[in-house]
Parts: sequence; structure tokens; C-alpha cells
Amino acid sequence: MKNTFGQSVSVTIYGESHGQAVGVVIDGLAPGIPVDEDFIQSQLTLRRPVGSISTARQEPDPFQILSGVYEHKTTGTPVHIMIPNTQTRSTDYSATRSLARPSHADYTAYCKYHGFEDFRGGGHFSGRITAGLVAGGAIALSALKTKNILIGTHVKSCGNIQDREFQNPEADIAVLNQKTFAVLDDNKAEEMQNLIKQTAEQKDSIGGILETAVLNLPAGVGEPWFDTMEGLLAHALFSIPAVKGVQFGNAFELVNSYGSQYNDAFRIENNKIITETNHNAGINGGITNGMPILFQCAVKPTPSIYQAQNTVDFFKNENAVLEIKGRHDPAIIHRARVVVDSITALVLCDILAQRFGTDWLA
Amino acid sequence: MKNTFGQSVSVTIYGESHGQAVGVVIDGLAPGIPVDEDFIQSQLTLRRPVGSISTARQEPDPFQILSGVYEHKTTGTPVHIMIPNTQTRSTDYSATRSLARPSHADYTAYCKYHGFEDFRGGGHFSGRITAGLVAGGAIALSALKTKNILIGTHVKSCGNIQDREFQNPEADIAVLNQKTFAVLDDNKAEEMQNLIKQTAEQKDSIGGILETAVLNLPAGVGEPWFDTMEGLLAHALFSIPAVKGVQFGNAFELVNSYGSQYNDAFRIENNKIITETNHNAGINGGITNGMPILFQCAVKPTPSIYQAQNTVDFFKNENAVLEIKGRHDPAIIHRARVVVDSITALVLCDILAQRFGTDWLA
Amino acid sequence: MKNTFGQSVSVTIYGESHGQAVGVVIDGLAPGIPVDEDFIQSQLTLRRPVGSISTARQEPDPFQILSGVYEHKTTGTPVHIMIPNTQTRSTDYSATRSLARPSHADYTAYCKYHGFEDFRGGGHFSGRITAGLVAGGAIALSALKTKNILIGTHVKSCGNIQDREFQNPEADIAVLNQKTFAVLDDNKAEEMQNLIKQTAEQKDSIGGILETAVLNLPAGVGEPWFDTMEGLLAHALFSIPAVKGVQFGNAFELVNSYGSQYNDAFRIENNKIITETNHNAGINGGITNGMPILFQCAVKPTPSIYQAQNTVDFFKNENAVLEIKGRHDPAIIHRARVVVDSITALVLCDILAQRFGTDWLA
Amino acid sequence: MKNTFGQSVSVTIYGESHGQAVGVVIDGLAPGIPVDEDFIQSQLTLRRPVGSISTARQEPDPFQILSGVYEHKTTGTPVHIMIPNTQTRSTDYSATRSLARPSHADYTAYCKYHGFEDFRGGGHFSGRITAGLVAGGAIALSALKTKNILIGTHVKSCGNIQDREFQNPEADIAVLNQKTFAVLDDNKAEEMQNLIKQTAEQKDSIGGILETAVLNLPAGVGEPWFDTMEGLLAHALFSIPAVKGVQFGNAFELVNSYGSQYNDAFRIENNKIITETNHNAGINGGITNGMPILFQCAVKPTPSIYQAQNTVDFFKNENAVLEIKGRHDPAIIHRARVVVDSITALVLCDILAQRFGTDWLA
Repeated sequence: MKNTFGQSVSVTIYGESHGQAVGVVIDGLAPGIPVDEDFIQSQLTLRRPVGSISTARQEPDPFQILSGVYEHKTTGTPVHIMIPNTQTRSTDYSATRSLARPSHADYTAYCKYHGFEDFRGGGHFSGRITAGLVAGGAIALSALKTKNILIGTHVKSCGNIQDREFQNPEADIAVLNQKTFAVLDDNKAEEMQNLIKQTAEQKDSIGGILETAVLNLPAGVGEPWFDTMEGLLAHALFSIPAVKGVQFGNAFELVNSYGSQYNDAFRIENNKIITETNHNAGINGGITNGMPILFQCAVKPTPSIYQAQNTVDFFKNENAVLEIKGRHDPAIIHRARVVVDSITALVLCDILAQRFGTDWLA
Repeated sequence: MKNTFGQSVSVTIYGESHGQAVGVVIDGLAPGIPVDEDFIQSQLTLRRPVGSISTARQEPDPFQILSGVYEHKTTGTPVHIMIPNTQTRSTDYSATRSLARPSHADYTAYCKYHGFEDFRGGGHFSGRITAGLVAGGAIALSALKTKNILIGTHVKSCGNIQDREFQNPEADIAVLNQKTFAVLDDNKAEEMQNLIKQTAEQKDSIGGILETAVLNLPAGVGEPWFDTMEGLLAHALFSIPAVKGVQFGNAFELVNSYGSQYNDAFRIENNKIITETNHNAGINGGITNGMPILFQCAVKPTPSIYQAQNTVDFFKNENAVLEIKGRHDPAIIHRARVVVDSITALVLCDILAQRFGTDWLA
Repeated sequence: MKNTFGQSVSVTIYGESHGQAVGVVIDGLAPGIPVDEDFIQSQLTLRRPVGSISTARQEPDPFQILSGVYEHKTTGTPVHIMIPNTQTRSTDYSATRSLARPSHADYTAYCKYHGFEDFRGGGHFSGRITAGLVAGGAIALSALKTKNILIGTHVKSCGNIQDREFQNPEADIAVLNQKTFAVLDDNKAEEMQNLIKQTAEQKDSIGGILETAVLNLPAGVGEPWFDTMEGLLAHALFSIPAVKGVQFGNAFELVNSYGSQYNDAFRIENNKIITETNHNAGINGGITNGMPILFQCAVKPTPSIYQAQNTVDFFKNENAVLEIKGRHDPAIIHRARVVVDSITALVLCDILAQRFGTDWLA
Repeated sequence: MKNTFGQSVSVTIYGESHGQAVGVVIDGLAPGIPVDEDFIQSQLTLRRPVGSISTARQEPDPFQILSGVYEHKTTGTPVHIMIPNTQTRSTDYSATRSLARPSHADYTAYCKYHGFEDFRGGGHFSGRITAGLVAGGAIALSALKTKNILIGTHVKSCGNIQDREFQNPEADIAVLNQKTFAVLDDNKAEEMQNLIKQTAEQKDSIGGILETAVLNLPAGVGEPWFDTMEGLLAHALFSIPAVKGVQFGNAFELVNSYGSQYNDAFRIENNKIITETNHNAGINGGITNGMPILFQCAVKPTPSIYQAQNTVDFFKNENAVLEIKGRHDPAIIHRARVVVDSITALVLCDILAQRFGTDWLA
């Protein structure tokens, strides 16, 4: 399948940036999960451009639940959430239709869809499609909360500015989930926002790294091969258009160390088996060990920058220069954070339903 | 599914370290792909422990093709390759059965399989299971070669020693695929091997980073969401028991840069569309753009070290100290390289069969 | 997965009878397939109750294509067609909420969804959900037509009245696809409609058998095991709520004969390999042989009848008597016919895309 | 996927008639299911040709469990059962390699695999491949028995001879599972066997209908669309090479009746909800209602008959006459019965694992 993910709980997304709507169909959620429309709206708002560091279109993202929810609870049948597109300005795009925006999917879409693609505003490749994932993810997050499974993500780095590490994950997650710009150290949040503003003034964009913690997953979940916890999460997370790397723990730094440094010693604490360190990020052999799952996503700088860029005209097969117009963010890392949380929640609902049956999360 | 991966071309693996056999069933390969038994054997040999830096069991990995091949060509029906286990010494393991080896899957297997797991030698979690992937991957590599699609992997780093970067990928791949210890700079190969020997003397182990290049994939392959080229490759690569991170290009370093630095400008060269840099690693919007695909896998240090380690006895739920005996490698990164190539080839065969039909790769 | 079917071309349906909308997301269709909105509407009209033999709700089934179509052609990305529910009268149902309508899914839905199901009007089990399949199937039928693959279904029997058999399938299909009440012999059509009227006057309902022909499929399509042509079609056809049997050719009659009678002799005709008879219905070993595919669906009588019926109250766990009110058809077989065509077309698009790649049907 | 079926519990088969082995990999079975090797062997023996009515090759079907079982219990990891081919006489087949045996898959295999197929003895299309399903099905049957879920199949008809119907399904199943020739009425068994002998003497073959009962499935299992209980069972059952029709209850006869006759009234009996009749065969809306599931498979006459048959030479594209040599059964319906039981058990294990989690059936 293509725009569908998951087995026991599956997610299908559809839509184009300048079509009539984007949306999501989630199937397989347990019947009886509470559906809190305010929470869905607040999650969608986190995904939207906010304040002075986001110059892009300010769409309120109103959503409609068209199926699968009855009297504010999931029914167990497919939940369809539609988010109509309201502020589409299609005239922006036709003039530069065949100029491949660098780091964007215009050229690859053309290679794949032979020119039939709806190219306006990035079409089906637009970050706007993630709104469906966020709306659906909000229900998945609510489902996980019924078992006290918690997810939180912070901007670990943006440019050369580093947030502090997770210290008390449960408290840190509670704080992060109240924040619009999810950084643990408020001073760093301010520095990052200043950097993003400066970057915008330079007609440039900037990327960074998101770090996510998942708490209270039961031990023994995941598969040894292929459907490892790492593999399933990474598969889905790479859907986020800007994500180019996924590591569990701090892998790319730590793997060059010795086994005596990397190994996580087990220990009994309060009659429970824990590990003293957590370099394996809560996963051994693809399966949860009960410790927090920790992973990082590398989020590349927004491809749309206002500087002249060398490119090609793929209709004429000749070199060209492109100056991108329109409304674009100088950074999306702070917005991508809620998408990471949402995808993570959807994947975990699937894995848990496979392991414990369709009714477990309710 | 669990131990199965892929849609149009699917791979199913089975086996335990000390059971009777490990193996692989590959279904959906085009009929007519040449099957070179010598190549399968040489790939299996690359996976085996070699020479002075591998102290572990020296199993010759003879294999049997039991179905799906007729007169040295694939038939189009399921290919089953079985690799009997011959050198199993089960008595090593029973005494320490309930002592969780740190960074290994003993404890998580116990949580998942409730003690019914075949625990001997890591059972189904053993790196030995990758022999099936390597045998099947050899046929996938041959299939890709019919379209000149080439794959090569080098040890980018081992401990603090760095190999040089890919310079001329086509030539570099040709060289790498002749080498047992796949490092581009021969001096670095020697340094790494010395480091591994020293590490073994310290009763320790060491990890590193593998970097892979894939050449000559057609542009326009992959999906925009979920089944992105990145997502499918990462999903499968995380099956390798030691892999804890996957990045495309040099993502975790580069994303903290500016868009003006990260974006890959398009350009016409020899009447073909290329990019001037390749920070996006050949993939835009989940879809190939015709440039080389480049990715790195973080391979953690071998968990089995000969030092005393703190752990728990999960039968008694009490703290314990474990000294691992038996035969174990101080590093597996040089062996993991052929597993990465194999998995990559299998995933690409699947993606290409989905895109161009079941007969394309023959 | 649950409400999703297909691999290369997949179909996801959602909706409840008295919710806000029903609909379908089809993914994986080739880019460039013509989308004829009039044809979609006319197919939806065939599914709607018509004239004097249908007393049920007369909903015009207006539809909206919300994604995946640009300038009247498929883009290659997910096509979402939504059909809003407009004439819902929810007050009909609450009084009898816990009285299991015989042969309906009220009780089984309660067992599965624990009372969280949207029970109004059958909820997600309503025949109305097939509107999404019909809308999506219309595009699939158009895709198949690009390769001259034709599908037609007639009411083979309704009660004790039998239509004539297919004689010239290509001409017969052309005629059937112009008819609202798809019977090859016009006299039999009138008899059947009279029977349905009489049945309605008796407060009863009646079933029958649909027979479908598929022409011009290339030979060599389908799989030997599991994903046989028969198995994939049957899997999807059993989704139609009233279908309780699927046979290829006239299997349940013919299998009690001798091999010398049942076997289809091959012969060259006009330089093409054909079979003299077609008892195997165009399929040998799960794979098409180039002859017409012929299958029959047994469509049970509409469960809703206006007579008092014995049942249980599954809240009180006690016996009860139920008299069904509201709007219900005395027969749905003539309406189910377009659903059979639609599902068949969707399944074939999937099978053909797997075999020949994603771009073949355009 | 192709030769793989199932999501939570999946089955992969491989092998060719004259290759080295046939076999099955079953993944996702709960850990701890008892594995009774004698039962596997006795099930395999039921599939083998027996006594005077089977002239075909008398292969003892010894099997080897190569993975996934430890100390006579499933481990939860993939179970691989291999059945070596021992009595292969390949010289029989090469002379007639391009003469399409009527009703066999020679010609369709050639269309699909372009001549690369292993054609000897039907290759991957041989009924022998079902040995893997039977071996794996034996474990699935044992798993179901842990929850008292019972499956039994009888030869409902062979030619013009009819067995009696199920009367007391639980007792009938117990009796059937002791019989080699599974007919409820012993007189009819003798008549059928005589008919088969006569048919063999006429150099002909004969088919029939199998009827299966499944008892004690919990209510509430199955999905409303696509993955209906009927659809999943039918999908897998059509894999049996001779099955050309699947009906639930007696659908093709009964659907031409009135709703007042077909509907199954609910009633409380012993404080449990049952239905007074069972025309819906235990399934409403795709979901079990707790009554027995009853279905019938139409099994076509064995295609191999010893009479001269018209056919084509598909290499030369010209008409030909074929006289089949070798060892072939005049009927396979009595052997197909254990294949139906096995496939049914495997499909139910999958459906139940999806519903109740991976550990339920142990």
C-alpha cells in the first residue's frame, strides 16, 4: 500500500495543498475511546504557523469528524476526519510549474506521475497533508492515555542552539505538552526563536533535531525482525517530508564507543526490572524493555527560501534560476514536533492492538 | 506480519541459533533471474567471522536452495534457501538462562514469549538469522544488476577511526565488493582491525557506522507518504539487531544548517537532470531523483563482552552479576555490511516490482 | 487491515448510515485515468432504489471528489470521494435499539463493539456504505476500459425466475450496462419485477443470484496460492452484506460430474489459444487463461421484512417480538449488481497493477 | 503478497512437486501451543492417497520441524515445517512439457512465468504443496482446541451420491476426525468409494462438495467490510487448486427463497442467545454470532484423466492430442477434506489473534 500504514490500526491519508480538503481515515481503533474535539483542535493549532516566526498561511484548520465517532466516543469503525482547504491561492504556482524547487518534490513527482500530479502548492507532497495525521493522532494519543502511555517531543537543537536533555521525562512531557514552542529550557527557546527570525531576515531557512520520549509502554512489545519497534516507528516517521534521519537514543554519537560503555546494565528497582543507563532507548532486539523509548528525528531546513537558486525547467530540460514567492516558513521544526507525536501515537496504537487485541486501548 | 517484509517481493525468515536450520523464503522475484550459487556462497562468507579479529564460531554456512529455482534461474515462485545449523553447542547457555545479558534480547524475549522462547544462543534473535537475509539478498543483488543498479557499503567509522568518503561511487563500489573488510582507505582498514584486536584484548567490543551507496535507480520510485524510499529502507534496516540509527546523507550533522546550504541545486549535465550537491541523498519527497542514494546505519558495539556485568535474574527477580562465556566477536560492523547490502537489495526489488510490475527485474 | 482492501491499488471505505457522510479513498490508481463525473453519477443512480419496486429512501447520492483528481484525470495520489448523507431520519431506530433484527448485524455488532457502535439505520453495516464502492468502482471501470477490459452482471435468478445465460458476452455486457434492471431476457425482467412487487405486498422480501462476466483480461494474471484470481475476487465480493456464496462458472452444479465432462479442451482459434468450453471460468491454477471470467454471487433476501419476527432483546437478554418499521426494499439484487461490478473492477485494478506496474492502466 | 496469507498469524508456503522439498512457515502463533508430532503425521496421512481408490504416488510425507518449536511447544517465533520430496520421477514429464493439460495450470503458468517455471509434475501448482498447509494446519487445529474451537468436514456429495447432513455437529465432528474417508453415513461412504473405483476403471475422474462445520467460535469476530469472516475464509479456501465455489450455509439453493424463510430468528436458550435456524451459517454482517459456521466447497473433478484429450502445444501454437500418463487419483475430494480443515484453522487463528491479541490461543 502507499498512503496507508498499519495493520491492526491503520491510517490512510489523502489530499492536496490546493484541493478541496485533506484528511485521514483511521481504522481499527478500539470502540469506546473518548474523542475530545477541543484536544484535536488544539493539536491542529500546534501544527499551524504561529506568531512572528511563521510567515506562512494562517489557516484555522477547522475539522469535521464524518464517521466512526458516536456520542463523543469511537465506535470501532473507521474514523474519518476531514479538514477543508479554505485559503488556497492557486495563482501563485502556475508560472513556475516546471521549475523544480531545490529539495522539494516537484521534479520527482513529475517523474512518478508524468505531469498528471496536482502541482499547486506542492500538491500531495505539501506539509499540509500532515494535518490529517495530527487530527487522527490526537485520538491515538487519547487512546494511549487510557493506559498512561505518554509521548512528548522537544526541539533538541535548532541551528547551533541546543536544548537541555530530558531529565524527569514524565514532568518534562507534561510541560512540553503545554508549550507552543516545545523547548525544555526557556532561555534556549528564546534563542532559537531569535535565530529563526534572523534566518528569515536573511531570506534563508534553518533545520534542527527533534527528540521524543515515550513512557510507560509495557515490556515485551515489538517484533524481533522487520516489525521491530525501531523499524515501525522509523518507517512512519520518515513520512514527515523534512525528516532525513531517525536514531534511537543518541546512536550516531554513541555507537563509536565500547560495549562496556554502551551496554545498559539491568537492575531491580522497587521490585521492577530497569536498566541503569538507557543507551538502547528502551528497546532490545526490537522489543520494549519497559524503559522510556527515546528517539531523535533530523529535520532538514525548509526547502523554500527566498534567495535565487539554480535549478532546471523539467519541461524544457534546460537550466534555470528560480526565486520562490509566496508564504513560507523559515523553520518548521517547532511545527513538526506535533506531527512526530501524532505519528508515534498512531504507530503505537497499531503495535499494541496487534499484541493485546483490538479492545485493549479503551 | 512479523518476520515477513515486502509486498510485491516479500521476504520471510525463520530459524534459531541452535535449532536445526535458519533460512529465508523470498516470493515475487521475477522469473528468469540468474541464480549464481557461488555468489550466494561468497556473500555468506562475507557475513561469517573471519580471521584474527573474529573469535566466534567458524561455521561454513553451506546452503540449500529447496524451491523456486530451476536450471539456475528463478522460476517466479517462492525461493526457499535453507542453511542448516551444524556447529551448535547448546550446553553453553542453560546455566545462565535467566540472567539477562545487557543490551541483548533475553529479557525482552522473556516478556514477549513468556519463557517458551528457544533461548539457546539468542534463539531467534541471533545474528545468525541474518544468514537467510544474506542468501536471499544475493539473488536480489543479481536481479538489480540486470538493470545496472549497484549497491556498496563501507565501514565509515569504527571507534574513532574514519574511512574516507565515497568519491567515485561506481568505482568505489566495485572495489568494496571485492573486499572482505570493506573500507575505502586501506590504511584505515588496518587501523580499524588493530583497534578491534586491542578491543578484544580488553575483553570489550566496539561499534561504528556503515555507509551505503545505491547507484542507477531510476528517478520516480517511492511513495510520498509512509512508503517513502527512506521509510521502507529504514524499516528493514532496523531489523539488523545492532542498528540503532539510520540517516540519509549526513542528516544529523547537516540539518542544523541553513536551507541555502542544504538545498541541492538542480542542473542539466550531459542532457540529464542532476543535482550539484546531494545532501538529500537522492530522494525528494520520498521519491528517487536519479542521484545516488546514500545512507548510514549506526551499528552498536557487540553486546557480548567478557567483562563482569551487572544484570538481573528475571526468574528470581533479583540482581545478579554475569560473565559471558562462549564465542563472540569484538566487532560485527564489518560483517553487518553484507547484511545491509542484502536488505537494501531485497527492499529495492520490492519497490521496483511494485512500480514496474513483477517481470521488470529479469 | 479491516475496511481496506488491495495492495497496489487499495480501497478504504468509511461511513455510517445516519452519520454525516459515507465515502471511499482509492490509492494507487495510475496517473492520467479519465474521471467522468457523469459516469460516476449514473453508477451511483443504479445503486439507488428505483421506481415501484423500491420503497426505500430516495437519496440522490450527490458526490464530491475531494482529492486525487486534477483536470478530470487521476493524479496518481489518493482519490477521495465523499457522499454526504442528507436524508437521515434517526428517530426511527432508537426505540428498537436492542432488538436484534434477524439476519442483520445488530447483535453481532453489539458483540464486537460493546454498544459503542452507531446503531442508527444499521450504522457501518448499512448497504449505504456500498455507495463509496460504487463511486470508486466507476473510476476503476474507466481504468479497465483503457485496456478494453469489460465487466457486466445480470440477475441470473430472482426467486424461481431464471434469466437466460450469457450468449455473446461482449454484446450482452453492452446491453446490460444500459439497463437499470439488468436482465438479459426482457420478459424475465418483467416477471421478476412482478414477483418483487408481489413479495412486497406480502410484507416479505426475496433474493436471487447475480452472474458476472469479465472479458479481455490478459492471460497469466493471478497467483497460484492464496492470491488466486478466484480468492481475491471472492474475498472482496463477500463484503457485499447480502452475498453468502461465490462460485466460478456453475461450480456447485458441475463439480459432481466427471472430469471428462468438466475439463475444458484447449484449441487454437484465429491463431489464439482458447478453450472449447469454459467450466473453469477463465481461470486455471488461480491464473487467467484469457477466456471470460464468469462467476455468480448468491444474494440473500433482504433481511428487513414487515412481518412480526421472533428475536431477542440483547440488553435484557430476553425473548422479544420485532416489527420492523421504516423504509426497506423487498429486493436488493438488482441494486447489488452495480456493487458487484464495482468491487470486481477495483480488485482487477489491484491485480493488474501488481502484475504490470502502477502505470499500466492509463 | 503472493504465497503468504494472514496478518497476525501468517502462512507462507513454498515448493514444487519435483523439487527438493515443500513446506510452510507459520508466523505469529502464540507461544506455548502444544505441538503434537503424531497428530501432524496423522493429518499428513489423511492428505495422502489411500488404499484402492488412490493410484497415485504413495509418499510417506515425513516432515521436519526446523524452527519455532522448542520442547514440543511453539516458541512464538516462525514455525518452519519442511517435507522433503522423496519419490520424484521427473522423466515422466519432459516429453509433454508444452502440451497444456486441460483444466490444469500448465498453460497459465507458461503465460505468467514465461517458461521459467519448474513444470515437472505441475511444479508449484501441484496438490503436493498442500502438504505444507496440512502440517501447519495441524498446529493451528491444536491451538484452536485450547479454546474448544472445533472443525470438521465431510464429503457432502461425490457425483450423484449425497451424505446425510450434520445433525449433532459436535458428535459428528468427533466421528469425522477419526475417519479416513470422511462421510457421516457409512453406507454412503461405501457407495462413494465404489463410484470412485468405477470412475477410475472408465479412465475418468469425479468431483464433489465438501461441507465444513466450525463450532464454539466466540460471537463478535470478523469485520464488516472486506475482512468479513466469509471473505477471509473464502479467499484462503480458493487456494485449494480444485475449489471453484464457496458458499455459506446452502446459499445457492436458499437465496432464491423469501426473507421470511431465510431469516434466522433469535431466541434465548439456556441463558444464551442462539438462532432457531442457521441459514446465515453463523455469520451476520461478516461477524460471528456464536452459532456454528457452516460452509461448502465445490471441488472439481481431478483434471488428470487417462482418456485422450484435445489440447494445444503452446510452444508450437498448434492443436494437439494429449494422453496423460503417470500416477493420478480418480478423485481427490476425500483428500481435500483435511486441506479444508487446515486452511480453516490457519485463517481462524489469524482472525482470533487480530481480535484478542497474540497470546490468546495458548
